[in-house]
Amino acid sequence: MLPLISCKDMALPAPTDNDRRADDQRIRDGLGLHPLTIPLGVLRDTPHTLRGRERVSCVVGRDAAGFRLVDIGSRRSCSVALDIGTTNLVATLCDNVAGNDLLTVQAENPQIAFGSDILTRLHHAMSGRAGELSGTLITGINRLIARLCSEAGFEPKDVHGLTVAGNTVMSHFFLGLDVSTIPVDPFVPVTRTPGFFTASELGLDIHPRAAVYVFPNAGSYVGGDIVAGILASGLASSDETSVLIDVGTNAEVAIGNRDWILVGAGAAGPALEEGISLIGRRARKGIIYDVSITGEDVRCSTFDNAPPEGICGSGMVSLLHELYASGIVDKSGSLRAGARHVTERNGEQSFRIDCSGGEDLAITQSELSNFMKSKAAMFTLLLVLTRAVGVGFKDIRRVYVAGALGTGIDVRKAAGIGMLPGWEPGIITPLGNASLAGARLLLKNGDLIKEIDSISERITYKHMHDDPEFMKEFLGAVFIPHTDLSLLKV
Amino acid sequence: MLPLISCKDMALPAPTDNDRRADDQRIRDGLGLHPLTIPLGVLRDTPHTLRGRERVSCVVGRDAAGFRLVDIGSRRSCSVALDIGTTNLVATLCDNVAGNDLLTVQAENPQIAFGSDILTRLHHAMSGRAGELSGTLITGINRLIARLCSEAGFEPKDVHGLTVAGNTVMSHFFLGLDVSTIPVDPFVPVTRTPGFFTASELGLDIHPRAAVYVFPNAGSYVGGDIVAGILASGLASSDETSVLIDVGTNAEVAIGNRDWILVGAGAAGPALEEGISLIGRRARKGIIYDVSITGEDVRCSTFDNAPPEGICGSGMVSLLHELYASGIVDKSGSLRAGARHVTERNGEQSFRIDCSGGEDLAITQSELSNFMKSKAAMFTLLLVLTRAVGVGFKDIRRVYVAGALGTGIDVRKAAGIGMLPGWEPGIITPLGNASLAGARLLLKNGDLIKEIDSISERITYKHMHDDPEFMKEFLGAVFIPHTDLSLLKV
Repeated sequence: MLPLISCKDMALPAPTDNDRRADDQRIRDGLGLHPLTIPLGVLRDTPHTLRGRERVSCVVGRDAAGFRLVDIGSRRSCSVALDIGTTNLVATLCDNVAGNDLLTVQAENPQIAFGSDILTRLHHAMSGRAGELSGTLITGINRLIARLCSEAGFEPKDVHGLTVAGNTVMSHFFLGLDVSTIPVDPFVPVTRTPGFFTASELGLDIHPRAAVYVFPNAGSYVGGDIVAGILASGLASSDETSVLIDVGTNAEVAIGNRDWILVGAGAAGPALEEGISLIGRRARKGIIYDVSITGEDVRCSTFDNAPPEGICGSGMVSLLHELYASGIVDKSGSLRAGARHVTERNGEQSFRIDCSGGEDLAITQSELSNFMKSKAAMFTLLLVLTRAVGVGFKDIRRVYVAGALGTGIDVRKAAGIGMLPGWEPGIITPLGNASLAGARLLLKNGDLIKEIDSISERITYKHMHDDPEFMKEFLGAVFIPHTDLSLLKV
Repeated sequence: MLPLISCKDMALPAPTDNDRRADDQRIRDGLGLHPLTIPLGVLRDTPHTLRGRERVSCVVGRDAAGFRLVDIGSRRSCSVALDIGTTNLVATLCDNVAGNDLLTVQAENPQIAFGSDILTRLHHAMSGRAGELSGTLITGINRLIARLCSEAGFEPKDVHGLTVAGNTVMSHFFLGLDVSTIPVDPFVPVTRTPGFFTASELGLDIHPRAAVYVFPNAGSYVGGDIVAGILASGLASSDETSVLIDVGTNAEVAIGNRDWILVGAGAAGPALEEGISLIGRRARKGIIYDVSITGEDVRCSTFDNAPPEGICGSGMVSLLHELYASGIVDKSGSLRAGARHVTERNGEQSFRIDCSGGEDLAITQSELSNFMKSKAAMFTLLLVLTRAVGVGFKDIRRVYVAGALGTGIDVRKAAGIGMLPGWEPGIITPLGNASLAGARLLLKNGDLIKEIDSISERITYKHMHDDPEFMKEFLGAVFIPHTDLSLLKV
């Protein structure tokens, strides 16, 4: 198992009358990696770097053909795993010599200046501003990596590798590729298998010869982020059938095993990420992940027990469960006028989450209704996908939960509101940012390239946006927990 | 058999609901070449090129891994084969669509401004002027290719492929690689196997993604020009043992068959190319290739029967033979003072070649002495190399003669002066510029890459510069025809 970017400090015998191997051959023999491409830039540096030295450090990356010598003579080396989300960019820096992850940082995707949703950005791109959208993204990534390097004590030129997971539109923007065919029937991207590039051809301010790998997609609706998430879950290498639930700006579900993988994405719009409700936030210190309502009393649990500043996806699941259990919302998710802590604000009902010592946080009816749609979409996705492959909920051995829902979710409450079937908590594995985790895994083991290709080839996509069965089942799922309780059984 | 650069105009079905292959996949499937690299630049152009078209033209080159899509949508395509000689650059343009060679042009290697011999140029390069030497060469090549394109009716951006054969120093200058270790014991180049590059990384003014292939060398003294020449001769694919004689700025001999190849290069300095004697020229219209002296009468045969302007290598062989046969020079190659047409000029004897209607051409004693050394080096090379592999002159089934000697040589006269053993004229095959011929062959058949690698790996080099046997045998060969006639026997 060799990392995607490996560093080797090796002895290099000087040429003699009995050893007239060319400089590049001595390096090849020393590395023993085949096939190895040595770029012209490295060849040009080689004699100066070797002269008078008995040892040389080599940084070896990969390309489509095999291995590629990224640099020689460099003293430090790191790599970055990057998740390009529609809303956020998240990046982890890994020390290539020590082999450990050092730091993860996050920033807003600066394309948000062109619109928070992907369709608006596509519209801008198709109106002649594609270059701006790509340029803005690259600038934002350069800024994020510069910050990451600065905080971790590296120089951007020390970054010799970059793995990139993003949805198909984000990957195309990243590569400067045309996006105009992606949202238009028959939804065909320029490429499904981007593979390897060098930093210089992408305008990235890292080592110009750094190996940049972009995860393959499985079509316009199943991006490299999902492929990376499936890799991180391990779903695709198991004999048993598992489910991966990823809730980000969109809700996506993958079901499968080592033989087949079916992916569906939710049509019911935004789910649980920050930006959806006014107080919605990603899981971090001070964010509510659990709520309990007893009588008049509303208690919130926050990460690190800090004063509450917002609520994450798991907190929303818990909140809706408690609101329903205490009769504050009805089966349809509507706040009852006059119930405890319910007041009218700006012409709509609103529930005030009184957290001792914290701010006065509130959630509106329309935010609750959006969440009802999200939870309904999630369950319907699970129902329709398992049904499509003839698998019952009871046959699922493991459920990986990634994204906004992943951290701190109370599985029984999720089942209680009909968002998940009644799975035992023990089979649930939280993954956090699975897309980033997949990109990080590849940094640790470059041999995963084959597994990644295999995953993207095994994926079948079930289009839900205009699926009559999905729409029919969805209508029963926008109630708490469901109009047909038998469907929730495991 | 696929050319190095192949053009395919193919039907490309538009995507439908039942055919959601990505753009790049439809191109891959249409081409059916594996493995195929599609560079980022092509991916970026693809949607615009495909839109609204039912057919697309693809230009496919090679790289170390397999195939590489150089361009799509281009209407014209050509390739260039280039021989980088120390003295001259020679290039042939080949139409990639029709598959035929259109034109060959030649220009002086502009590095001559830094010295006519390679050692002076190496000295300059090692004194901090390497960048200038490389830059001058690239500029000269750009100029030559621009002229070639202009005369053949192409644009430089239509050049999608370039094959380059040159000695090890020239190849290193071409690639911008350090040359300083090449002339210094233990004579180790930066690379033996340069392989493929793109035009843009070399600063060539042709299509920026053009595939540029540089022939491998077999060490500092056996360059890609010799490897290309051996390829062109067919010596390396025959069961029978043959000899290849290439006389350019240096004299080189290869002997071998499909199992082994031994190469030696002459120490006795410059041989027969233009620049060696004042009137020395490459074979072309108006150049003397044969001389006959009968009594007072000196008759010259020139190419195209044009008025004589100079003398080529074959002409020199013939001249020395006739001078000796008519007693104008003695066994040691010295002009006899007072002999017919011999006069003293600038303090040395000189023979005036009176050609009816032509200019008054003359050859000096020092020029004749240089040629004596060249012919002695040539024979000694043949003697020592055949002896080294235990093969007699009689065992040689074919003799390929390339370079300045190749055109119009009279084999009996060459044997008469002891330059060649007494081989039957029927076994001699003239090759012209064998290095260029090898570079052209590769354009016609890209599969030859493997054969070229195999040739360069099979070559053993016998170093003659300080070989005691060579020096001893050389001393007997600087007489006409030789001090030991038995050695000339076949």
